[in-house]
Amino acid sequence: MTLNPALDLELTRLVAASPAQIWRCWTEPELLKQWWAPKPVETVEATLDLRPGGRFATVMQLGAQTFPTEGIFLDLIPRQRLIFTDALHEGWRPAPEPFFTAILTIAPEGDRTRYTARAMHRSPEDRARHEDMGFHGGWGTALSQLEALAITL
Amino acid sequence: MTLNPALDLELTRLVAASPAQIWRCWTEPELLKQWWAPKPVETVEATLDLRPGGRFATVMQLGAQTFPTEGIFLDLIPRQRLIFTDALHEGWRPAPEPFFTAILTIAPEGDRTRYTARAMHRSPEDRARHEDMGFHGGWGTALSQLEALAITL
Repeated sequence: MTLNPALDLELTRLVAASPAQIWRCWTEPELLKQWWAPKPVETVEATLDLRPGGRFATVMQLGAQTFPTEGIFLDLIPRQRLIFTDALHEGWRPAPEPFFTAILTIAPEGDRTRYTARAMHRSPEDRARHEDMGFHGGWGTALSQLEALAITL
Repeated sequence: MTLNPALDLELTRLVAASPAQIWRCWTEPELLKQWWAPKPVETVEATLDLRPGGRFATVMQLGAQTFPTEGIFLDLIPRQRLIFTDALHEGWRPAPEPFFTAILTIAPEGDRTRYTARAMHRSPEDRARHEDMGFHGGWGTALSQLEALAITL
């Protein structure tokens, strides 16, 4: 799957945790809740039905405001790749407000792990909107939180 | 997957062909092209990459006009169920103009086969638009064409 610079955003970094540790942080709700939102935002709910078509939903909270997200997993290769989207909801129904598909890949590289998160959009406008929402900062901060948690597992 | 009357359209019928014959008509491009479009519309191209995430694209033609469709398969259980959507394109990318997900189910019933095609939409407006485009007539005519072909296989 080739990156399309007009439609995609990508964050890639070498992290100290192993693929198995990173996979646990992504797939266990109680771990996901600890790193998924860049602090001071908190993830207060996480539903992960880990199969193609299974629901992936979270609720984030900042002060009195809550931010629900809703989508499904599309493809899962344990400790290697995870794909999910908000363009479809549970039961494969088209979502009212589709925004992006995310492809997470993790692979050993030397004594560390290459972590790459790609967000694919419908249009250059949506890509720009995601960038303006703080994709690099937000996903980057969350990744640092993930790494700090993962190495303790 | 429960039908949502506000968002879904469904066509169901008992047909004389077997699940295996119907499955062939749906999954072999040269067969699909013979029944997929209600005549006098013709299907002149059909691409079927039969795996979750695989491309499902057709081009229909009426006189000088062509009508391309683009989507992917989501889930396939041979001779039982086929799910595809135009809400995602190849590589799982969100589609610019998502419209529906289709769930086809086929199951033996007495000496015939229960054939059910459901179209699930993002909004009541999209459901109404699909109905106005002639969902029942179009899919119904195509199904009669499928049945006529399938029983010859």
